[in-house]
Amino acid sequence: MSNQLSFIPLGGIGDVTKNMYLYEYNNQILIVDCGLGFADETMLGVDLLLPDISYLLQSALAKGPKKIVGMLLTHGHEDHIGALPFILPQLPSFPIFASPLTAALANEKLQEFNTPRRVQKISFDSAMGNMIKLGVFKAFFINVTHSILDTAHIFIQTPVGNFYHGSDFKFDDTPSQGKKSDYEKIAQAGKSGILCLLSDCLGAERSGRSASEIGIKNSLVKEIEQCQGKFIVTTYSSHIARLNQIIQASEKVGRRVCFVGRSLIKTKEVASKLGYIKLSSHLEVTLDQIKQYPDHKLTLIVAGSQGQEESAMARIANNEHREVRITERDTVIFSADPIPGNEVLVYELIDTLVKKGARVVYTTLSRDFHVSGHGSQEELGQLISLVRPQFLLPIGGAFRQMAAYRNLAINLGYKKSDILLLEDGQEVIFSQDTVRVGRIISVKNVYVDEISGEEVESFVLRDRQKLSEGGIVIVLCEVDSASGQLTSGADIIIRGFTISNMKQLNIRLLKDIQAVLKGRKGRVTNWVHIRKLIGEVAERRIFKDLRRRPLVFPVVIEA
Amino acid sequence: MSNQLSFIPLGGIGDVTKNMYLYEYNNQILIVDCGLGFADETMLGVDLLLPDISYLLQSALAKGPKKIVGMLLTHGHEDHIGALPFILPQLPSFPIFASPLTAALANEKLQEFNTPRRVQKISFDSAMGNMIKLGVFKAFFINVTHSILDTAHIFIQTPVGNFYHGSDFKFDDTPSQGKKSDYEKIAQAGKSGILCLLSDCLGAERSGRSASEIGIKNSLVKEIEQCQGKFIVTTYSSHIARLNQIIQASEKVGRRVCFVGRSLIKTKEVASKLGYIKLSSHLEVTLDQIKQYPDHKLTLIVAGSQGQEESAMARIANNEHREVRITERDTVIFSADPIPGNEVLVYELIDTLVKKGARVVYTTLSRDFHVSGHGSQEELGQLISLVRPQFLLPIGGAFRQMAAYRNLAINLGYKKSDILLLEDGQEVIFSQDTVRVGRIISVKNVYVDEISGEEVESFVLRDRQKLSEGGIVIVLCEVDSASGQLTSGADIIIRGFTISNMKQLNIRLLKDIQAVLKGRKGRVTNWVHIRKLIGEVAERRIFKDLRRRPLVFPVVIEA
Repeated sequence: MSNQLSFIPLGGIGDVTKNMYLYEYNNQILIVDCGLGFADETMLGVDLLLPDISYLLQSALAKGPKKIVGMLLTHGHEDHIGALPFILPQLPSFPIFASPLTAALANEKLQEFNTPRRVQKISFDSAMGNMIKLGVFKAFFINVTHSILDTAHIFIQTPVGNFYHGSDFKFDDTPSQGKKSDYEKIAQAGKSGILCLLSDCLGAERSGRSASEIGIKNSLVKEIEQCQGKFIVTTYSSHIARLNQIIQASEKVGRRVCFVGRSLIKTKEVASKLGYIKLSSHLEVTLDQIKQYPDHKLTLIVAGSQGQEESAMARIANNEHREVRITERDTVIFSADPIPGNEVLVYELIDTLVKKGARVVYTTLSRDFHVSGHGSQEELGQLISLVRPQFLLPIGGAFRQMAAYRNLAINLGYKKSDILLLEDGQEVIFSQDTVRVGRIISVKNVYVDEISGEEVESFVLRDRQKLSEGGIVIVLCEVDSASGQLTSGADIIIRGFTISNMKQLNIRLLKDIQAVLKGRKGRVTNWVHIRKLIGEVAERRIFKDLRRRPLVFPVVIEA
Repeated sequence: MSNQLSFIPLGGIGDVTKNMYLYEYNNQILIVDCGLGFADETMLGVDLLLPDISYLLQSALAKGPKKIVGMLLTHGHEDHIGALPFILPQLPSFPIFASPLTAALANEKLQEFNTPRRVQKISFDSAMGNMIKLGVFKAFFINVTHSILDTAHIFIQTPVGNFYHGSDFKFDDTPSQGKKSDYEKIAQAGKSGILCLLSDCLGAERSGRSASEIGIKNSLVKEIEQCQGKFIVTTYSSHIARLNQIIQASEKVGRRVCFVGRSLIKTKEVASKLGYIKLSSHLEVTLDQIKQYPDHKLTLIVAGSQGQEESAMARIANNEHREVRITERDTVIFSADPIPGNEVLVYELIDTLVKKGARVVYTTLSRDFHVSGHGSQEELGQLISLVRPQFLLPIGGAFRQMAAYRNLAINLGYKKSDILLLEDGQEVIFSQDTVRVGRIISVKNVYVDEISGEEVESFVLRDRQKLSEGGIVIVLCEVDSASGQLTSGADIIIRGFTISNMKQLNIRLLKDIQAVLKGRKGRVTNWVHIRKLIGEVAERRIFKDLRRRPLVFPVVIEA
């Protein structure tokens, strides 16, 4: 058995989301995180992406004596726990650990998909002396600040050396809720000698420090005191500390709080059970009850800060919500930034709200209502200084952010070769004091379709792309099975664009098809081939005459 | 004849682009600008939008004695002149005036579309004493600073009162090229008494002043001096002052300049002819010549700052450009911000370049290489103070920016009712001292398709939307014309998604179709109706079984 540790990112490198990392030592595998990816606009009609676990299914588990000894979850964001219900049923059993809130959110999600609630709670009390043991690995959790409570960094001891798994974090020394990051424990981990620091790098382009969460409450109080109608705030559903700030501001001025939107209500319930949201029953009202209160006695916390079309916020803005109407006296606060790619939807939503006459406060007007959950250069450098690792490996960022992280580390005295910039599926192999590049594990995008929850193949996406850009042309013709020739003309049906000279195209295409079929007279033995031939002829003709490349769909009827 | 002036925006209100405004006095119409709109991602496969001129074609010109007395163009950006080649051929003849550069760019564009070069040059020398006369209207141009040279505000005298048409501008007192805004002439216009100020409002959300163009040169010089490979800058093709700054920085360090990309080369040629770009022949090299120079003696100005997939910058980044390859010694400067909606493409481009090892400088890293061409609150307020209008009408912004402009004006002492927030097609009618809301002229989106240049109907867009989101289902069946019943089974062809239980769907759908056809036995007289019936049945079945709403396309074969 060779004394080396293999690190394989199945997701989370270069694309921010769908975080899933393997630590492999001989025949034992430890997994960290199991997150969803979010599709961008090039993935039409697809909502979600999964990490590709083919490596686990086909090589690691199927062929050898390898086994998964456990899984650790860093925090409760979708891109770190969201893939659990899709992935766990495909894998053999193993223990899963997470901090209290993370475990509760993960189990809730599993239950939603009729999967057993199997994530075990672990406290932040574990430390160097009393680590969790998972096969040859030992680990303890370190509390850090982020935009969700109970976020952990993980110290992982392996036979080859110690790893510091530093996923999403910021160093907020005045968090509005929860403790500040446990610097002592981080330093303790550092003192034990860290072979490699894996670090969040999303904020590596920004100089200085990220702003603290604490400032937001004052901004909320100031706005809520001036508001004469409903006070409406939209934010990320999982940002419990933010929800509490809104609740506290409302309590201060004597407003009832109503949660609007399924995801928000779910988070509120999970967090309330754990005592992370403290909301006395007389303070909360349901949607059905809001009619009983005048507008200036109401705060609505509404899901849909990203302009999602079916969200509560969008329906309210468009007068399509059953219980809530916007008036000129209302204030709407966007306590969230648009995630890149969502700008058009978010600004449309804002315009619609402004047209209703409400006071709308959003990032362009004021930066007082949202701060990033990721550390900037100073905080990333601070983590490096505390951990003092031999190697650095930025995770959870786009390539440009990984490069910015590398520049930062170089400025702190590291050599360029000490900083490992990977891509998903790129194995790196650690020995005692060295690191080298290993195999490239093939990881493809695995899509989950919005409606069915089924995986979508990439050829389906290519079709959708073609359909949306170029439309579709259906070429319909009847071929005599005995002669292999057309029995009559060819019909053309077009969707997705219009043409003026349909007849001309029809005549030309008919000639083309006749010509190609003429060359192969006789009984048809292979209909698939005939279909393909006609499709190709049609594609060429359509491109020649129309300069277009629609999805051409030949429908051949056997006569 | 009534003494009232009607102002009708055909485009440019609430959607920033496709600027086109009508001033109508009795039977005379003066047009300002004729710009293109740019499609967002909800308009699949569509590139361009035109202002809707149905009002002119159907009501104003066709029915009455009305005539267009002239058109004035404020500046040479696509969203102010780009629709000329599509619109002019549809309208009767009338004089068109613009500043020298604007006229040259507009004529170039007309020529490109085989349309006569008919825009006449007018200098900024015209003033109160020697105005252009267009029917009852008189006008003079006022030089203002913006992100393209020769930008004009227009003073328009009408029998009802004076208008100040203040489209896109900033007040840059240290422009890198050209004169600063002509404050004296603005004040002169103001002194004559302005009934209504139409003002750019795009920057109304930003406090303070917009940064000056002058600072960019120093940033460029600093970067170019440190660059050991090719110095590559991508920016807006029409930003001539910016191009000159890049040329000057290159000249300073002895680099040859090469323009890469069709749009850039065209602008360079037009601007050079007018003397707006000064580029000695020994300084410029063509793409064919760059091999003759070492990398550190080259500056490339490259089109494609918005990540457009077919642009020179994208092809260079992807190693698909014939002459240019990125090396680790190169520097790439993004001297442009991503336009909202382009973020995903731009950041993908940046990631690709960073992966090649080049130094890439973009907005998130440094704000030193781009400044906005639109004024912020202070400048907008300054224009209001100089012009002192009776009424204000924000143009060229989204609704949230119009609302921010209104707040600004209210802070300067205006009454809410003095500020007119319109939508496209909303007429306002001015009399001597009053204003009132008039007709709503129906303006729909007019799409121009990328490839054909043809207009696209909105039903075609709906189809594309459905295709891209839900895929397509073709239901193929043969119906006996005598009995109106199916001759055999129904075939189902699916594109854009996959299903596992195809056979079951097929059986159920067949039953549904048989059931609906059974109710109408007998000779088929209306095939369209049969087709529609089968389509509806299939849509219902597919939604019921799959919870999907694809484009269902029934193909009925007559037997």
